[in-house]
Formats: sequence, structure tokens, C-alpha cells
Amino acid sequence: MTTQSQTHVPEPSTDIEMPAAAGEAATQLRGQEAIGDLGDRLRHATGGRYGQVRDLARAALPDETMVRDPELTVPEAREWTRNALRTLVEHGAAGSGFPIAQGGLDDVGRSCVDFELTSHGDLSVTVKSGVHFGLFGGAVTSLGNQWHHEHILPPIMSMDQIGCYAMTEFGHGSDVASLETTLTYDGETDELIVHSPTPSSAKTYIGAAAEDARIAAVYGQLEVGGQAHGVHVVLVPLRDPDGQALPGVTLGDNGLKGGLDGVDNGTISFEQVRVPRRMLLDRYGGIDDEGRYVSEIDGDNKRFFTMLGTLVRGRICVAAGAAVSSRKALSIATRYALRRRQFSAPGHDGAVPLLDYLAHQRKLIPAIATSYAHMFALNEIMERLQDLHEAPEKDQVAQRELETRAAGLKALTTRFANDTIQVCREACGGAGYMAENGLTVLRADADVFATFEGDNTVLLQLVAKGLLSDYQEMWGDLDMRGMVQFAARSIGGQFVEATAARPFVSRLIAAAARRSESETLLDRGWHLSMFADRERHVLETLANRLRKGAKEADSFTTFNAAQDHVLLAARTHMDRVVLEAFVAGIEACEDEEVREVLERLATLHALSSIEADSGWFQSHNRMSATRAKAVTAAINRLCGELRPGALDLVEGLGVPEAWLNSAMLTAPQRWTPGVA
Amino acid sequence: MTTQSQTHVPEPSTDIEMPAAAGEAATQLRGQEAIGDLGDRLRHATGGRYGQVRDLARAALPDETMVRDPELTVPEAREWTRNALRTLVEHGAAGSGFPIAQGGLDDVGRSCVDFELTSHGDLSVTVKSGVHFGLFGGAVTSLGNQWHHEHILPPIMSMDQIGCYAMTEFGHGSDVASLETTLTYDGETDELIVHSPTPSSAKTYIGAAAEDARIAAVYGQLEVGGQAHGVHVVLVPLRDPDGQALPGVTLGDNGLKGGLDGVDNGTISFEQVRVPRRMLLDRYGGIDDEGRYVSEIDGDNKRFFTMLGTLVRGRICVAAGAAVSSRKALSIATRYALRRRQFSAPGHDGAVPLLDYLAHQRKLIPAIATSYAHMFALNEIMERLQDLHEAPEKDQVAQRELETRAAGLKALTTRFANDTIQVCREACGGAGYMAENGLTVLRADADVFATFEGDNTVLLQLVAKGLLSDYQEMWGDLDMRGMVQFAARSIGGQFVEATAARPFVSRLIAAAARRSESETLLDRGWHLSMFADRERHVLETLANRLRKGAKEADSFTTFNAAQDHVLLAARTHMDRVVLEAFVAGIEACEDEEVREVLERLATLHALSSIEADSGWFQSHNRMSATRAKAVTAAINRLCGELRPGALDLVEGLGVPEAWLNSAMLTAPQRWTPGVA
Repeated sequence: MTTQSQTHVPEPSTDIEMPAAAGEAATQLRGQEAIGDLGDRLRHATGGRYGQVRDLARAALPDETMVRDPELTVPEAREWTRNALRTLVEHGAAGSGFPIAQGGLDDVGRSCVDFELTSHGDLSVTVKSGVHFGLFGGAVTSLGNQWHHEHILPPIMSMDQIGCYAMTEFGHGSDVASLETTLTYDGETDELIVHSPTPSSAKTYIGAAAEDARIAAVYGQLEVGGQAHGVHVVLVPLRDPDGQALPGVTLGDNGLKGGLDGVDNGTISFEQVRVPRRMLLDRYGGIDDEGRYVSEIDGDNKRFFTMLGTLVRGRICVAAGAAVSSRKALSIATRYALRRRQFSAPGHDGAVPLLDYLAHQRKLIPAIATSYAHMFALNEIMERLQDLHEAPEKDQVAQRELETRAAGLKALTTRFANDTIQVCREACGGAGYMAENGLTVLRADADVFATFEGDNTVLLQLVAKGLLSDYQEMWGDLDMRGMVQFAARSIGGQFVEATAARPFVSRLIAAAARRSESETLLDRGWHLSMFADRERHVLETLANRLRKGAKEADSFTTFNAAQDHVLLAARTHMDRVVLEAFVAGIEACEDEEVREVLERLATLHALSSIEADSGWFQSHNRMSATRAKAVTAAINRLCGELRPGALDLVEGLGVPEAWLNSAMLTAPQRWTPGVA
Repeated sequence: MTTQSQTHVPEPSTDIEMPAAAGEAATQLRGQEAIGDLGDRLRHATGGRYGQVRDLARAALPDETMVRDPELTVPEAREWTRNALRTLVEHGAAGSGFPIAQGGLDDVGRSCVDFELTSHGDLSVTVKSGVHFGLFGGAVTSLGNQWHHEHILPPIMSMDQIGCYAMTEFGHGSDVASLETTLTYDGETDELIVHSPTPSSAKTYIGAAAEDARIAAVYGQLEVGGQAHGVHVVLVPLRDPDGQALPGVTLGDNGLKGGLDGVDNGTISFEQVRVPRRMLLDRYGGIDDEGRYVSEIDGDNKRFFTMLGTLVRGRICVAAGAAVSSRKALSIATRYALRRRQFSAPGHDGAVPLLDYLAHQRKLIPAIATSYAHMFALNEIMERLQDLHEAPEKDQVAQRELETRAAGLKALTTRFANDTIQVCREACGGAGYMAENGLTVLRADADVFATFEGDNTVLLQLVAKGLLSDYQEMWGDLDMRGMVQFAARSIGGQFVEATAARPFVSRLIAAAARRSESETLLDRGWHLSMFADRERHVLETLANRLRKGAKEADSFTTFNAAQDHVLLAARTHMDRVVLEAFVAGIEACEDEEVREVLERLATLHALSSIEADSGWFQSHNRMSATRAKAVTAAINRLCGELRPGALDLVEGLGVPEAWLNSAMLTAPQRWTPGVA
């Protein structure tokens, strides 16, 4: 390319001190900021039930497999990703969710932790793992029967056969019920005919379809004996052992994407492809030996949603991956802001570190606080996923609540990731734009988390619909609004979600109510009641609005006219769920010093949310003008209080320094003026 | 890569209708939405003084040069960019800002329009053009003398010699005054010695330094006869005609970036490189034949800021480029939202187009309205730039106001671009993530606009400081707050900026004041007074806070503690400037139908800003709770009213369809279900 020096940084033209190694640099920084091993203790406090699994993986996964050279071309990146995944799997980074009989741990919570841990590294590897083990393997595990477990899973678990998950079609992304691919049962040959009847029915964006997948879990409309039974899933071989497409299968490559260069997304269409009947994943609905459709679940709609319930794990995984991406970006940007100095100021030795500027603190520190909140919320949902999975009796209400929260948490954390990574990129200036510093690659890769496993807007609607139907079912649908009001009144004037009331929440809220406004700004009970009250009011007025609207217009028009209100209901619900998880995490923490830091972070997180919704709180008479201003002042103060421990805070986020893949953090300090 | 079909979309497996061409598709859409040639008339109304220049360029610039294949490797992209720039220059896309004597037009306003027009295409070409013609050529033109114009400019204008702009150093980005590169005058040989004394003084991120640049405009600390004179600029040859680095010059390549693959950013360091004295760009300060430093400007600081004043054009260019990027993203996402349908609904023929969903409207339509606002604000500043350039007498106050606005508009439009392009990407779902659809490349390329030509946070501080010092100078600095209050009271109780009062603003505000609150929601005067009042109050309280703080702490501590307030002052100032430019643009529009559409867009833009700051307006008693809710309802209503003309609105944004470079917009409609 150039005819001169190819180094990324010019050779120094004067004598310089020896560059400090990465570890030394951190120690040096810690020297300035030190409060002991607080970072480790913070990480411990946020580990939850799977804390030890996480710590073991942090030690076991090889550093070189967790960082990818951003300059690889797409073909090189695909090859590297393929190999990196195999290496990580050899180190135990996948497979926890498979049945014990097949050598798994039957621990679906831990399978999300597996995904989370790989996402500390290169996200192409993570997504590649998620598609193969999580989506394909998960579909076979959850929707298949014993035969599928015994015959399909072993080569999947060993990666001798790569699977893909063929749900999305050109014409149908969010609207899965309208998929056009047909799965038609032919009783004469006892086969299913898989077919793409229109151009818009071709599968697209399917991870691993372009190169690696030998077999696909194909979503389509099942027809048996001329009767439609809605969306089902069938396993269809795609390629022979040489990688050639099988007869009737047309495969394409989606080409370059906005990121995830190592993932081979592709297109698939089927021309009357026949597979034996047993390839149908028939746990919730199948075809018996007489060629009749059989299902334990009555109603296509109910069966459809039960089958889609298997998406819950994928959504938790994506939420975890997005949360890790935010933590990684914040770790990079905060460490940089401690090293990088710009502009001198009176009373400052040398130029001022970026993190000493209030505006810079406000970019990073509240986001760190929210990252802690998300860690606790994710721990809780992963543990809940496994608890419900283990439970001998299926609890339908709890299952639906889990699905709602998984959808909501996915939307929340992926929105947060896209916003936060961008803030971090900009906070590192020109250095942030260099690929070798890790932020642009991270942003490009994490971006699509907002879309896959469910578009965020669609998922938030799902959350709101879940909340509305909970009430409807619980109280009947004659007068939804009255019922919501009754539910609210019935628990001491405070709204508490029926299925997940936590004793300490009520206690803290009640305690806050006895204090005067001037005392309560930093009071957890006040935060909790603000969040709960906002949620209750938004949901109650939404229910009322929809009920009234339904008398005047069709349901689409009514719902659509309130769509911003619907999305607000979902968000405020999830905000409350996340804050309560944070508070529960603090309640469980026994390390006093750590607890104190977490309390401060929780306050900063809560006040930031209240500040962001200041307009709502004031227009609904939940907050005075004076208090609104006090909230902003308190946030600034908290940022200043937390700033000296910033390095500990990001160490507590748990991303090992060697996995940050950011050249500017290991470059010698000498690049920064004012540092000897 | 794959052994099977390489097509991006699978071959259709059934008979299909012939694909509609891009133009036909648009006509088809227009058929559904038609209100005539409104798009053209909107474009005309937003063209301003340079409207015809813009229209001519839209017709002249060759389509194939305006779109880049996103799959090119970095070396290919650099080569393509180089050639594309030459082609665009042959079609007249650069050079307007050069002196008439050298064959330019001496029209710096038009030079910004040149930049704006190239940015409709590939942004690497734009940036490459901006570095060479704008930054390097602009520095020679503005900071050089007749000799430089005659000897340096001709090979620059013909592109026989490529220049680069070597300001940023590893250790010094925003803090230009602290650059470490030394420019030391050696009286014995009548030369300047250019030197990089430390590793942190090496130049970095310099566009064209890695491969193409033969000569650099180098910023460094001038020392003459042992005395320091602050930052000056000297021209330094970098490479010989074969592209080899000259003795003493070490060049490096910054490698892969977050985008702008076609731009060869690199590093430069100097080891005692000697150049003749005349290479100093000495318009504001130089060395005479006796080897003495001479300058017409007293004081290093004042001279420094005068020289940096030449950055104003670059900032306006970046603002224009960012604004075009937003317009392009909105054009793509809106056109897609008209084609793409998802979920069926009662009363809808086939599935519902995305743009019929309220949430989707709220993602795109207010952003379209703000894009119109930015177009008018940019027209105004480009015209102002040229007016001041042409004026026989230099108006220092007007010049400083221009610099303040350029900095502010750059920060505003680049923030808006990063947010908006991301919203558009997500609004197009999985398709939005495919590189061939144009959004991810656009976002990756435009991203760094937030950083270069001044980090946004630093620029907003500059704006606030400019506003504060205006008052200080105008009224003396004994009691800044009292003066601000006096200034506000002195103009009929309304704050009007002294240098740019517009008669219609006062008239509209006065008219609104006579109406009752219930009538004024859609009243322009109310919007204007809300914006002006917000700005006045924020600035007044900031001045007061800083004055009080200065008694208690050092200036850094005081200013830093108020940094969020400082940034708010800058933003609210710019919001007011932009809204007034929008209103002025409407006042100038003679097409009644177009005016009506623009009025609606201006209302949507204004209400969206008020809604976003709802917390502030309520906590400062500028808006009641009832009104806050009414604002949200009005925004929803306006989105619905503007939706039928959405295609016209994006056509009015002026990005030719052939330049959108988005495969999904030209793909046959058959990919969308529900469209015959």
C-alpha cells in the first residue's frame, strides 16, 4: 500500500522511556486511584449463582481466541471464526443446555452464561455459537423428541455437523405466523415436502447458511391431509459431506454486512424437498403413524406461541451479549479516560485526565451504573429460566412472565448497547475511530442485536401485550381499568406485580412514604415507588385508552394510535423490573464496602432514569420542579463521588483486560502528554 | 467461499412478474401517495442562494462515481476513491473557494456547497476532497500570501500534487494550542526547522498522509530568535515524485478505521526537517527579511484564534456532510417503510406498510422535519460565510458570531446524523444491516464527523464561551448577570440576539403573547418564544453561576462543575438559531402549497424539541403539565398528517434516487408480501 514505514505509529524520534506493559499501566493507574481489590469484590458480588462458572471461564478461555484482528477480510474472518469456535468449545464454552443423556448438563441458565462468556470475545464467534448450539441445538432439544435427541444432537454437540435456524423469510421477519414456506405431509410416501412457493418465502439472513450448515431447522406452515396446522419446524439436510447443496436446495450468500464478518449469513430456498416424517420436531404437534395430525395443545394459536416460547433462551442470550458489549465498551472508554489528558488547568499537574471533566463523567459513569443494574437483572432471569426448566410442574403464569421479561430485557439491553458503545467511541475521539482500539468493531458487530431474535419495537409491544393480558386474564375483561385500579389499591396503595412481589420492595417503599420530600432524594424507597408508580399509571391509562378506543374504531386503529403509549408501558415495566433486580442484588451482598458502592451505583442508575423521564414525572405530578432540578444536581455529585474508584468500577464489570483488544490501552503512556 | 450459488438472493422457484425498475417503483408508490411534483418544489424551496448550483451538480455528477461497492477491500477502496475524486473534480465538484487569479471563484460559500454535493455520494471521496481542497487548499488560500497562491495552489487545484493538513498530534487533539511540533527559525540559513521533539508530538490521523500526500500544512510552535510566537503553519514536502518519504520524514499508516475505507489516514513525524522561510504561511504572522518576527495582530492568543478562524469553513462543510448523510439515511428508510409491509390488520389490503405504524412514523417523520430545519440553517450559514468574505470591511463581531454558529451547527448536525442513521438502520430491520442496502456503510463513514474538525463536546463549549464573552464585551464584565437581564428587558421583555434580530421573530412572538394557551400550541410565535426564552434563561443562570462560583473556587473548578449547564446553553442557543432559520426560510417561500407543508414540518420540528426538553420547560415553569401532554398528542397527529406525503418529503430532501446505493429499494416489489 505505502512505500514507506508500515507501522501504525511512527518511530519515536527522541529517546523515550521503555513502554510500560499493559498490566503495569493498570497498576500505575490503580496506584493513583487505589481502593484495594474492590474491582474483584465487585465482580464477585455481581456473579450470582453462576459466578464461579464465570470466573472459571475467565481463567480458562485462551486470550488469543477472544480477540480477532479487525483487519481480516471476510473470508479470513469466517475461517478464523470457525476455528475460534472449535477452540472455545474445547475449553467448555458451549453445550450446557443439552440433555444429560447426550452429555450436556440440562442447564439452560448456564447455557446463557456460556453465550455471555463467549461474547466477551469476538461477537462473530458468539453468534456462530448461538446459531449452532443455541438456536439449532436448542430447537432440537426443546421441540424434538427422544429420537431427535439421540440421532441429531450428538453430531451437533461435537460440531461434526453444523446446523442453522431457518425462520426468517424475505417477506416475513417479525411476523412469524405469516411465514410462507410450506411443509406438506405426503401420506403415500410418509414424507414431508418442504417448499418455497414464492420469492418472498425464501429464507434469508440465516447464520451458517452461506457456507457451513449441513442441516437446517426450517419453520413453515404444516399441512396434513389438506388441513393447515400453523407454523411447525422440520429438519432439512442442506449440503452433502462435500459441502454441495442437495437436490432442490438453493443456497446463497447475503454478502457483506454492517459487522459480524465472521458469520456466513445466507439464503435458502426449497423446491419440493422431501424429508422423512420423523424429521418434524413434534414435541408440541406431530403426525402419527396413521398420518393424522396430533397435538396435546388445542388451538393453532396457542401451540404457535408455545413453540415460540423456545425463543426465550435466545433472547436472554442476546440480552447478555449486548450487556457484555456495553461493559466492554465502557471498560475501554473509562480506562482511556483515565490515561488520556487534554488541556491544562490551574491546580492540575500536567493536563487534565478526561475523566476529571464533568461532561465526560456524565457520559460514562451513569452508563456504568446501568450496566451493573443489567448484570443483576440478567442473573435473575437466567436463574429463573433454569428454575422453571427444572420445576416438576409447569407454571404457565411464571413461564409467560419469563417470556415477557426476556423480550423486554433484550430490547432494553440492546438499545442501551447501541447507545453506549457509540458514546464510548466518541468519548475516545479519533483514537476511538481506529479499528485497532476495539470500539468500532464492537459497535458494528453488536448493532444487529437490536434486530435479531426479535425487532426491539416488536418485542416491546409483546411486553405490553403480556402485561395487558395478565390483567385481563386475572380480573376478566369486562372493565380492565377498574380491575387495574383494584389491583393497585389492594396492596397498600402501592402497585406490586402479582407474580413477583418482593418483601423488601414494599418495606422500602413504605419507609420512604413516611419521610418528607427533602429527605428522600437518595432514598431507595422513593426510587422504587417512583418506578412502580410510573409503570402502574402508564399501564392503567393505556388499558383505559384501549378500552375506550375499542368502542370507536377497529382494534388495529386503536392500538396503533396508542403505540407510543404501548411502548412506554413496556419500557417503564422493564425499568422497574431492572431496578428491583438491582436492589435485590444489593440485599444479597454481604460485603459492606462493596454494598456501599453498589448502593451509590443504584442511586445513580435510578436518578438517571428519573432525570431522563423528568418530563413525564412532572406532567403527571409525581415530581416538583424543585425536585427535578435537585435530581440533576445529585447525579453530578454522584458522578464526582464515584470517579475516584472508576477503575475498580470497570474491573467489577468483569471484562478481563487481555480481552479488551484495544491497542490504545496497551500503548505506552508516553503518547499522553503530562504523564512521565 | 461457497461451492454453490453466489447470488445474493436465491433464484425464484416459481413464476414471477418482471421486476419493476427503480423509477417505476417510485412512480408506483407515488401513485398511491401522489400530490404532484411536490418533492421537486420542496427541493426548490430549500435550495437557497446556491439552489441552482445544487441542481446543476445533481444533473452533472455521474451516478457511478457517487456510489461505491461496499465490498471493496481497503486498498481497492483507496484506489477507487482516488479515481472517483478526479472524476468528480472534472465535473466541477471542487475548487470554488480558490482565488479568481488562480482560476477559482473566490466563493467560499459555494465551496461548502461543493463539499455538500460530493457528500451525497461516497463519504471517503468527500473527505479526501475536503482534506485536499478544503483543509490544505483552504489553509494556503487563507493563511498564505500572494507567493503561496501563485506557486502552491496551481498544482493543488489540478491535483498534480496532493496536500494534507497536519494539525492533530498523538498527544494533542482538541488542545491545539499545546501542539508540541516545533518550527524553529534558523537565521543563518534563512530556513525553518520542523521537528517532532517527543513521541506525543507525532502527527496522526492525517488524511492522505499514509499514501498520497506530497506536501503537508504543518501546525507547530514557531520560535524566532529564541522567542516563542505560538502556533503557526508551515508547508513541508513529504514525498518525492516517486512517493518515497523525504529525508527526515517518517510516515506511517493508521490502518483500518471504523469507516472511510477510501481515506489513507496516517502518521507523520519530523527529524529536523529544513524548509525555506517562505514556506511559512505568514498572512497573520511571519518573519521579515531581517529575520524578525512580524505580525499585524498583537498578542499570540488573538493571533492563534484568528488563524483558527480559518477552521470555520471546514466545520460548515462537516455540518453539511453530516446533514446530507442524515437526509440520505432518511430517504432510504422512508422509501423502504413505504414498500415493506409486515403484519396484516383489519381494513388493510395485504399486510400493513411499516410507515403506517405510529411508532415507525415517530422514528422517521420528526427526523425528516429536523432535516429540513438543518437545510435552512446550513443555507444561511454558507451564505453568511460568503457575505462576510466578500465584505470590504471586516466585521469582527459578525465573524465571531459566524465561528460560534459554525462550531454549534457542526456539533448539532453530526450528533443528529449519528442518531438518525442508527434509527434508520434499525427501522429497516435485517435488511438495514446488509451492506448492500447502504445504511451501515453510511453510519460507519459519517460516525467520525462527531470527532474531526473539533470534538462535539469541545465545540459546544466553544459556543457557550462565545455567548458568554459576547455579553461580557458588550456590557463590560463588572456584573455579567445584571447586564444579561438588562439586555433581555431592553427588547420588549423578549430576548433577541443583538447581532441578528429578525423583525418577523419579534412580530410572531408578540402575536403569540396575545393568545391564550389553548390556542397557541401550533403557533409559531409560541415556539419561537419558548426557544428564545429557554436560551435566555439558561445563559443568564449560567453567567450568574459562573460569576458566583468564581468567588469560591478556581476558574477550572467553577467551569467544570457547571459543564452540563454550559453544554445546555450551547445547545439551546443553536436550537433557537436553527428554528429561526427554518422560519426565515418559510417566510421566503412563495409557493403556497409548499409553504403549508414547510409550516407543518417546522411545527413538528419545534414541538419535538419542546417534547424532548419537556422536563426543563416544566421545571422552569414554562409549560404546564396539561400542555406537555398536548405537545405529545400534537406530534402524533402531525406525523399522521404528514405520512401520506412522505415520499414527497424525502424527495424534497434532494438526494437523487440513483445515489442512494441501496439494493433493497431497487429489488423487485415481489419480495414484499401483499404487493402484487
